[in-house]
Amino acid sequence: MRIAVVTFEGFNEIDSFVALHILNRVQHEGWKAEIVAPSDSVTSMNGVTVHTQQPFSFVNQADVVLFGSGKLTRTVMQDEKLMSVFQLDPSWQLIGSQCSGALIMKRLGLVENTPICTDLVTRPSLVESGAQVLDKAFISKGNIATAGGCLSSQYLAAWIIYRSLGREAVVEALSYVAPVGEEQSLIERVLGVIETGIKSVAPSRHDKLTAV
Amino acid sequence: MRIAVVTFEGFNEIDSFVALHILNRVQHEGWKAEIVAPSDSVTSMNGVTVHTQQPFSFVNQADVVLFGSGKLTRTVMQDEKLMSVFQLDPSWQLIGSQCSGALIMKRLGLVENTPICTDLVTRPSLVESGAQVLDKAFISKGNIATAGGCLSSQYLAAWIIYRSLGREAVVEALSYVAPVGEEQSLIERVLGVIETGIKSVAPSRHDKLTAV
Repeated sequence: MRIAVVTFEGFNEIDSFVALHILNRVQHEGWKAEIVAPSDSVTSMNGVTVHTQQPFSFVNQADVVLFGSGKLTRTVMQDEKLMSVFQLDPSWQLIGSQCSGALIMKRLGLVENTPICTDLVTRPSLVESGAQVLDKAFISKGNIATAGGCLSSQYLAAWIIYRSLGREAVVEALSYVAPVGEEQSLIERVLGVIETGIKSVAPSRHDKLTAV
Repeated sequence: MRIAVVTFEGFNEIDSFVALHILNRVQHEGWKAEIVAPSDSVTSMNGVTVHTQQPFSFVNQADVVLFGSGKLTRTVMQDEKLMSVFQLDPSWQLIGSQCSGALIMKRLGLVENTPICTDLVTRPSLVESGAQVLDKAFISKGNIATAGGCLSSQYLAAWIIYRSLGREAVVEALSYVAPVGEEQSLIERVLGVIETGIKSVAPSRHDKLTAV
Protein backbone atom coordinates (compact mmCIF):
# COMPACT_ATOMS: atom_id res chain seq x y z
CA MET A 1 0.00 0.00 0.00
CA ARG A 2 1.75 3.11 -1.25
CA ILE A 3 0.24 6.42 -0.24
CA ALA A 4 0.95 9.78 -1.93
CA VAL A 5 0.35 12.87 0.22
CA VAL A 6 0.14 15.50 -2.53
CA THR A 7 1.68 18.70 -1.20
CA PHE A 8 1.87 21.96 -3.11
CA GLU A 9 3.73 25.24 -2.56
CA GLY A 10 2.15 27.17 0.33
CA PHE A 11 0.86 23.96 1.92
CA ASN A 12 -0.87 23.65 5.28
CA GLU A 13 1.39 21.72 7.69
CA ILE A 14 -1.41 20.07 9.72
CA ASP A 15 -3.22 18.86 6.60
CA SER A 16 -0.19 17.09 5.13
CA PHE A 17 1.62 15.89 8.24
CA VAL A 18 -1.17 14.68 10.52
CA ALA A 19 -2.38 12.31 7.80
CA LEU A 20 1.17 11.27 6.86
CA HIS A 21 2.10 10.52 10.46
CA ILE A 22 -1.05 8.60 11.40
CA LEU A 23 -0.85 6.56 8.20
CA ASN A 24 2.77 5.68 8.87
CA ARG A 25 1.82 4.31 12.30
CA VAL A 26 0.35 1.31 10.46
CA GLN A 27 2.64 -1.70 10.77
CA HIS A 28 1.93 -3.53 7.55
CA GLU A 29 4.43 -4.75 4.99
CA GLY A 30 4.88 -2.34 2.09
CA TRP A 31 2.65 0.30 3.72
CA LYS A 32 4.15 3.77 3.44
CA ALA A 33 2.82 7.33 3.17
CA GLU A 34 5.11 9.86 1.47
CA ILE A 35 5.18 13.51 0.50
CA VAL A 36 4.76 14.05 -3.25
CA ALA A 37 5.12 17.45 -4.91
CA PRO A 38 5.74 18.86 -8.41
CA SER A 39 9.25 20.01 -7.42
CA ASP A 40 12.11 18.64 -5.30
CA SER A 41 11.03 20.79 -2.39
CA VAL A 42 8.00 22.82 -1.35
CA THR A 43 7.61 25.54 1.26
CA SER A 44 4.64 25.63 3.61
CA MET A 45 2.32 28.58 4.32
CA ASN A 46 4.46 29.26 7.39
CA GLY A 47 7.81 29.06 5.63
CA VAL A 48 8.84 25.47 6.35
CA THR A 49 10.65 23.91 3.37
CA VAL A 50 10.33 20.13 2.99
CA HIS A 51 11.84 17.73 0.49
CA THR A 52 9.70 15.62 -1.76
CA GLN A 53 9.92 11.87 -1.13
CA GLN A 54 8.60 10.63 -4.48
CA PRO A 55 8.42 12.11 -8.00
CA PHE A 56 5.11 13.71 -8.91
CA SER A 57 4.17 10.95 -11.36
CA PHE A 58 3.99 8.61 -8.34
CA VAL A 59 0.37 9.80 -7.89
CA ASN A 60 -0.68 7.62 -10.82
CA GLN A 61 0.87 4.47 -9.32
CA ALA A 62 -0.03 5.03 -5.67
CA ASP A 63 -2.83 2.97 -4.12
CA VAL A 64 -3.94 6.07 -2.21
CA VAL A 65 -3.78 9.74 -3.21
CA LEU A 66 -4.43 12.45 -0.63
CA PHE A 67 -4.63 16.09 -1.66
CA GLY A 68 -3.46 18.36 1.11
CA SER A 69 -4.51 21.97 1.37
CA GLY A 70 -2.70 25.26 1.11
CA LYS A 71 -2.95 28.92 0.33
CA LEU A 72 -1.96 28.54 -3.33
CA THR A 73 -4.36 25.76 -4.37
CA ARG A 74 -6.29 28.07 -6.70
CA THR A 75 -3.08 28.92 -8.59
CA VAL A 76 -2.02 25.28 -8.71
CA MET A 77 -5.33 24.08 -10.19
CA GLN A 78 -4.98 26.56 -13.06
CA ASP A 79 -1.66 25.05 -14.10
CA GLU A 80 -2.84 22.98 -17.06
CA LYS A 81 0.49 21.21 -17.53
CA LEU A 82 0.59 20.20 -13.89
CA MET A 83 -3.04 19.07 -13.87
CA SER A 84 -2.46 16.98 -16.99
CA VAL A 85 -0.02 14.78 -15.06
CA PHE A 86 -2.91 13.34 -13.05
CA GLN A 87 -4.30 10.13 -14.49
CA LEU A 88 -6.08 9.01 -11.37
CA ASP A 89 -8.55 6.15 -11.32
CA PRO A 90 -10.98 5.82 -8.41
CA SER A 91 -11.89 2.31 -9.54
CA TRP A 92 -8.69 1.05 -7.87
CA GLN A 93 -7.26 4.10 -6.05
CA LEU A 94 -8.56 5.54 -2.78
CA ILE A 95 -8.59 9.31 -3.30
CA GLY A 96 -9.18 11.95 -0.65
CA SER A 97 -8.81 15.66 -0.04
CA GLN A 98 -8.32 17.99 2.85
CA CYS A 99 -9.84 21.51 2.85
CA SER A 100 -8.88 23.33 -0.39
CA GLY A 101 -7.62 20.02 -1.82
CA ALA A 102 -11.29 19.53 -2.76
CA LEU A 103 -10.78 22.18 -5.47
CA ILE A 104 -8.27 19.87 -7.17
CA MET A 105 -10.67 16.93 -6.79
CA LYS A 106 -13.37 19.04 -8.48
CA ARG A 107 -10.96 20.20 -11.18
CA LEU A 108 -10.06 16.58 -11.96
CA GLY A 109 -13.73 15.53 -12.15
CA LEU A 110 -13.45 13.22 -9.16
CA VAL A 111 -16.41 14.57 -7.19
CA GLU A 112 -19.18 14.91 -9.76
CA ASN A 113 -22.54 14.09 -8.14
CA THR A 114 -20.74 13.63 -4.85
CA PRO A 115 -21.32 15.71 -1.73
CA ILE A 116 -18.12 17.37 -0.51
CA CYS A 117 -16.59 18.46 2.76
CA THR A 118 -14.16 21.37 2.80
CA ASP A 119 -13.11 24.29 4.98
CA LEU A 120 -15.17 27.45 5.42
CA VAL A 121 -12.84 29.58 3.27
CA THR A 122 -12.87 27.20 0.28
CA ARG A 123 -16.61 26.50 0.57
CA PRO A 124 -17.95 29.46 -1.49
CA SER A 125 -15.82 28.60 -4.55
CA LEU A 126 -17.02 25.03 -4.51
CA VAL A 127 -20.67 25.98 -4.03
CA GLU A 128 -20.34 28.45 -6.91
CA SER A 129 -18.96 25.69 -9.12
CA GLY A 130 -22.10 23.65 -8.45
CA ALA A 131 -20.77 21.30 -5.81
CA GLN A 132 -22.89 20.16 -2.89
CA VAL A 133 -20.92 21.15 0.20
CA LEU A 134 -21.87 19.66 3.55
CA ASP A 135 -21.74 21.34 6.98
CA LYS A 136 -19.60 18.63 8.46
CA ALA A 137 -16.01 17.47 8.67
CA PHE A 138 -15.93 14.27 6.64
CA ILE A 139 -17.80 12.41 3.92
CA SER A 140 -16.92 9.46 1.73
CA LYS A 141 -18.58 7.82 -1.22
CA GLY A 142 -17.07 4.69 -2.64
CA ASN A 143 -13.36 5.30 -3.06
CA ILE A 144 -13.59 9.09 -2.74
CA ALA A 145 -13.46 11.05 0.52
CA THR A 146 -13.28 14.74 1.42
CA ALA A 147 -12.58 16.40 4.76
CA GLY A 148 -12.86 19.98 6.04
CA GLY A 149 -11.02 21.80 8.84
CA CYS A 150 -7.30 21.09 9.40
CA LEU A 151 -7.69 18.61 12.24
CA SER A 152 -10.15 16.51 10.23
CA SER A 153 -7.01 15.13 8.55
CA GLN A 154 -7.25 12.49 11.29
CA TYR A 155 -10.55 11.34 9.72
CA LEU A 156 -9.03 11.12 6.26
CA ALA A 157 -6.13 9.02 7.55
CA ALA A 158 -8.47 6.80 9.59
CA TRP A 159 -10.76 6.28 6.59
CA ILE A 160 -7.85 5.01 4.48
CA ILE A 161 -6.79 2.57 7.19
CA TYR A 162 -10.42 1.50 7.74
CA ARG A 163 -11.01 0.88 4.05
CA SER A 164 -7.70 -0.95 3.57
CA LEU A 165 -7.20 -2.94 6.77
CA GLY A 166 -10.40 -2.59 8.79
CA ARG A 167 -11.62 -1.20 12.09
CA GLU A 168 -9.02 -2.78 14.37
CA ALA A 169 -6.14 -1.25 12.42
CA VAL A 170 -7.72 2.19 12.91
CA VAL A 171 -7.96 1.57 16.65
CA GLU A 172 -4.29 0.58 16.75
CA ALA A 173 -3.03 3.58 14.74
CA LEU A 174 -5.09 6.06 16.76
CA SER A 175 -3.91 4.55 20.05
CA TYR A 176 -0.38 5.66 19.16
CA VAL A 177 -1.27 9.28 18.47
CA ALA A 178 -4.05 10.04 21.00
CA PRO A 179 -3.41 12.40 23.89
CA VAL A 180 -2.62 10.28 27.00
CA GLY A 181 -5.85 9.27 28.75
CA GLU A 182 -7.97 10.18 25.72
CA GLU A 183 -7.34 7.05 23.65
CA GLN A 184 -10.87 5.69 24.02
CA SER A 185 -12.67 8.99 23.42
CA LEU A 186 -10.57 9.78 20.34
CA ILE A 187 -11.11 6.33 18.85
CA GLU A 188 -14.87 6.54 19.43
CA ARG A 189 -15.06 10.04 17.97
CA VAL A 190 -13.05 9.20 14.86
CA LEU A 191 -14.78 5.87 14.20
CA GLY A 192 -18.13 7.59 14.74
CA VAL A 193 -17.31 10.22 12.12
CA ILE A 194 -15.88 7.92 9.48
CA GLU A 195 -18.50 5.20 9.88
CA THR A 196 -21.23 7.86 9.60
CA GLY A 197 -19.35 9.35 6.64
CA ILE A 198 -19.20 5.98 4.92
CA LYS A 199 -22.83 5.04 5.60
CA SER A 200 -24.41 8.43 5.03
CA VAL A 201 -23.95 8.30 1.28
CA ALA A 202 -25.32 4.93 0.30
CA PRO A 203 -24.22 3.98 -3.23
CA SER A 204 -27.29 4.07 -5.43
CA ARG A 205 -28.01 4.06 -9.13
CA HIS A 206 -28.96 7.70 -8.87
CA ASP A 207 -26.08 8.84 -6.68
CA LYS A 208 -28.74 10.13 -4.38
CA LEU A 209 -27.86 11.45 -0.97
CA THR A 210 -29.86 9.26 1.40
CA ALA A 211 -29.05 10.69 4.80
CA VAL A 212 -26.51 13.15 6.05
CA MET B 1 6.67 36.83 20.55
CA ARG B 2 9.20 34.52 18.93
CA ILE B 3 8.62 30.81 19.31
CA ALA B 4 11.25 28.09 18.76
CA VAL B 5 9.91 24.64 17.91
CA VAL B 6 13.00 22.56 18.74
CA THR B 7 13.15 19.68 16.29
CA PHE B 8 15.80 16.96 16.30
CA GLU B 9 16.80 14.23 13.84
CA GLY B 10 14.13 11.48 13.77
CA PHE B 11 11.42 13.93 14.85
CA ASN B 12 7.70 13.19 15.13
CA GLU B 13 5.82 15.21 12.47
CA ILE B 14 2.60 15.69 14.46
CA ASP B 15 4.46 16.91 17.54
CA SER B 16 6.38 19.63 15.71
CA PHE B 17 3.91 20.71 13.03
CA VAL B 18 0.56 20.74 14.85
CA ALA B 19 1.99 23.14 17.44
CA LEU B 20 3.81 25.22 14.80
CA HIS B 21 0.68 25.55 12.65
CA ILE B 22 -1.77 26.40 15.45
CA LEU B 23 0.67 28.95 16.90
CA ASN B 24 1.10 30.60 13.51
CA ARG B 25 -2.69 31.07 13.25
CA VAL B 26 -2.30 33.86 15.81
CA GLN B 27 -2.55 37.26 14.15
CA HIS B 28 -0.37 39.37 16.39
CA GLU B 29 2.49 41.61 15.37
CA GLY B 30 5.87 39.93 15.73
CA TRP B 31 4.29 36.58 16.60
CA LYS B 32 5.98 33.71 14.77
CA ALA B 33 6.68 30.04 15.46
CA GLU B 34 9.66 28.51 13.65
CA ILE B 35 11.52 25.22 13.34
CA VAL B 36 14.87 25.25 15.10
CA ALA B 37 17.37 22.39 14.87
CA PRO B 38 21.11 21.83 15.47
CA SER B 39 21.74 21.47 11.70
CA ASP B 40 20.49 23.13 8.52
CA SER B 41 18.02 20.32 7.96
CA VAL B 42 16.56 17.42 9.94
CA THR B 43 14.79 14.29 8.77
CA SER B 44 11.65 13.02 10.51
CA MET B 45 10.97 9.49 11.80
CA ASN B 46 9.12 8.88 8.51
CA GLY B 47 11.83 10.24 6.23
CA VAL B 48 10.61 13.80 5.64
CA THR B 49 13.52 16.26 5.49
CA VAL B 50 12.79 19.83 6.56
CA HIS B 51 14.94 22.93 6.62
CA THR B 52 15.67 24.78 9.81
CA GLN B 53 14.21 28.30 10.00
CA GLN B 54 16.45 29.72 12.72
CA PRO B 55 19.93 28.87 14.04
CA PHE B 56 20.02 26.65 17.11
CA SER B 57 21.17 29.45 19.41
CA PHE B 58 17.79 31.11 18.77
CA VAL B 59 16.43 28.96 21.64
CA ASN B 60 18.15 31.27 24.13
CA GLN B 61 16.51 34.40 22.69
CA ALA B 62 13.05 33.01 21.95
CA ASP B 63 10.14 33.97 24.20
CA VAL B 64 8.84 30.41 23.92
CA VAL B 65 10.76 27.15 23.53
CA LEU B 66 8.90 23.94 22.64
CA PHE B 67 10.70 20.61 22.59
CA GLY B 68 9.21 18.28 20.05
CA SER B 69 9.53 14.54 20.26
CA GLY B 70 11.25 11.92 18.16
CA LYS B 71 12.80 8.51 18.08
CA LEU B 72 16.36 9.74 18.72
CA THR B 73 15.73 11.96 21.77
CA ARG B 74 17.77 9.67 24.05
CA THR B 75 20.81 10.02 21.76
CA VAL B 76 20.35 13.78 21.47
CA MET B 77 20.21 14.33 25.24
CA GLN B 78 23.56 12.55 25.67
CA ASP B 79 25.28 15.03 23.34
CA GLU B 80 26.97 17.21 25.94
CA LYS B 81 28.11 19.81 23.43
CA LEU B 82 24.59 20.18 22.07
CA MET B 83 23.02 20.32 25.51
CA SER B 84 25.50 23.00 26.60
CA VAL B 85 24.04 25.38 24.00
CA PHE B 86 20.83 25.65 26.04
CA GLN B 87 20.83 28.59 28.42
CA LEU B 88 17.10 28.66 28.98
CA ASP B 89 15.46 30.72 31.67
CA PRO B 90 11.90 29.91 32.78
CA SER B 91 11.70 33.19 34.63
CA TRP B 92 11.00 34.92 31.32
CA GLN B 93 10.65 32.09 28.77
CA LEU B 94 7.61 29.82 28.40
CA ILE B 95 9.05 26.31 27.97
CA GLY B 96 7.13 23.20 27.00
CA SER B 97 7.67 19.67 25.79
CA GLN B 98 5.84 17.08 23.80
CA CYS B 99 6.23 13.33 24.56
CA SER B 100 9.95 12.42 24.66
CA GLY B 101 10.82 16.12 24.65
CA ALA B 102 10.25 15.81 28.43
CA LEU B 103 13.56 13.89 28.59
CA ILE B 104 15.37 17.02 27.41
CA MET B 105 13.42 19.14 29.92
CA LYS B 106 14.56 16.73 32.66
CA ARG B 107 18.14 16.72 31.37
CA LEU B 108 18.21 20.54 31.50
CA GLY B 109 16.83 20.62 35.05
CA LEU B 110 13.62 22.36 33.99
CA VAL B 111 11.17 19.97 35.66
CA GLU B 112 12.61 19.37 39.11
CA ASN B 113 9.77 19.03 41.66
CA THR B 114 7.33 19.35 38.79
CA PRO B 115 4.84 16.67 37.71
CA ILE B 116 5.30 15.72 34.06
CA CYS B 117 3.15 14.50 31.19
CA THR B 118 4.73 12.37 28.48
CA ASP B 119 3.88 9.48 26.15
CA LEU B 120 3.58 5.87 27.30
CA VAL B 121 6.89 4.81 25.69
CA THR B 122 8.94 7.59 27.32
CA ARG B 123 7.20 7.24 30.68
CA PRO B 124 9.35 4.43 32.22
CA SER B 125 12.64 6.32 31.65
CA LEU B 126 11.26 9.40 33.35
CA VAL B 127 9.79 7.46 36.28
CA GLU B 128 13.15 5.72 36.71
CA SER B 129 14.91 9.08 36.83
CA GLY B 130 12.68 10.07 39.74
CA ALA B 131 10.16 12.21 37.87
CA GLN B 132 6.49 12.23 38.83
CA VAL B 133 4.65 11.27 35.64
CA LEU B 134 0.91 11.85 35.44
CA ASP B 135 -1.70 9.70 33.65
CA LYS B 136 -2.99 12.58 31.60
CA ALA B 137 -2.21 14.57 28.48
CA PHE B 138 -1.17 17.98 29.78
CA ILE B 139 0.13 19.75 32.85
CA SER B 140 1.65 23.15 33.44
CA LYS B 141 3.30 24.79 36.40
CA GLY B 142 4.29 28.41 36.15
CA ASN B 143 6.13 28.85 32.86
CA ILE B 144 6.73 25.13 32.29
CA ALA B 145 4.35 22.74 30.54
CA THR B 146 4.56 19.13 29.38
CA ALA B 147 2.22 17.15 27.15
CA GLY B 148 1.90 13.47 26.26
CA GLY B 149 0.49 11.71 23.18
CA CYS B 150 1.10 13.25 19.73
CA LEU B 151 -2.24 15.02 19.36
CA SER B 152 -1.84 16.73 22.75
CA SER B 153 0.42 19.13 20.83
CA GLN B 154 -2.82 21.11 20.39
CA TYR B 155 -2.86 21.62 24.18
CA LEU B 156 0.74 22.82 24.25
CA ALA B 157 0.05 25.36 21.48
CA ALA B 158 -3.18 26.50 23.16
CA TRP B 159 -1.40 26.93 26.51
CA ILE B 160 1.17 29.24 24.94
CA ILE B 161 -1.52 31.36 23.34
CA TYR B 162 -3.57 31.36 26.56
CA ARG B 163 -0.61 32.43 28.68
CA SER B 164 0.51 35.10 26.19
CA LEU B 165 -2.72 36.56 24.81
CA GLY B 166 -5.57 35.07 26.85
CA ARG B 167 -8.60 32.86 26.39
CA GLU B 168 -10.16 34.65 23.40
CA ALA B 169 -7.01 34.28 21.33
CA VAL B 170 -7.11 30.51 21.96
CA VAL B 171 -10.72 30.38 20.79
CA GLU B 172 -9.79 32.25 17.62
CA ALA B 173 -6.75 30.08 16.76
CA LEU B 174 -8.65 26.83 17.39
CA SER B 175 -11.60 28.01 15.28
CA TYR B 176 -9.28 28.03 12.26
CA VAL B 177 -8.02 24.47 12.72
CA ALA B 178 -11.07 22.60 14.09
CA PRO B 179 -12.86 20.03 11.94
CA VAL B 180 -15.91 21.72 10.36
CA GLY B 181 -18.88 21.55 12.75
CA GLU B 182 -16.67 20.63 15.71
CA GLU B 183 -15.39 24.12 16.51
CA GLN B 184 -17.30 24.43 19.77
CA SER B 185 -16.54 20.94 21.05
CA LEU B 186 -12.82 21.26 20.25
CA ILE B 187 -12.57 24.65 21.92
CA GLU B 188 -14.37 23.38 25.05
CA ARG B 189 -12.20 20.26 25.20
CA VAL B 190 -8.90 22.12 24.76
CA LEU B 191 -9.78 24.94 27.16
CA GLY B 192 -10.99 22.36 29.68
CA VAL B 193 -7.67 20.51 29.52
CA ILE B 194 -5.38 23.54 29.68
CA GLU B 195 -7.37 25.37 32.35
CA THR B 196 -7.38 22.20 34.48
CA GLY B 197 -3.66 21.77 33.71
CA ILE B 198 -2.94 25.32 34.83
CA LYS B 199 -5.06 25.16 37.97
CA SER B 200 -4.20 21.63 39.07
CA VAL B 201 -0.69 22.58 40.14
CA ALA B 202 -1.17 25.66 42.26
CA PRO B 203 2.11 27.55 42.71
CA SER B 204 3.10 27.18 46.33
CA ARG B 205 6.20 27.77 48.36
CA HIS B 206 6.67 24.02 48.63
CA ASP B 207 5.97 23.19 45.01
CA LYS B 208 3.35 20.83 46.35
CA LEU B 209 0.91 19.13 44.04
CA THR B 210 -2.46 20.26 45.31
CA ALA B 211 -4.88 18.45 43.04
CA VAL B 212 -4.52 16.51 39.83
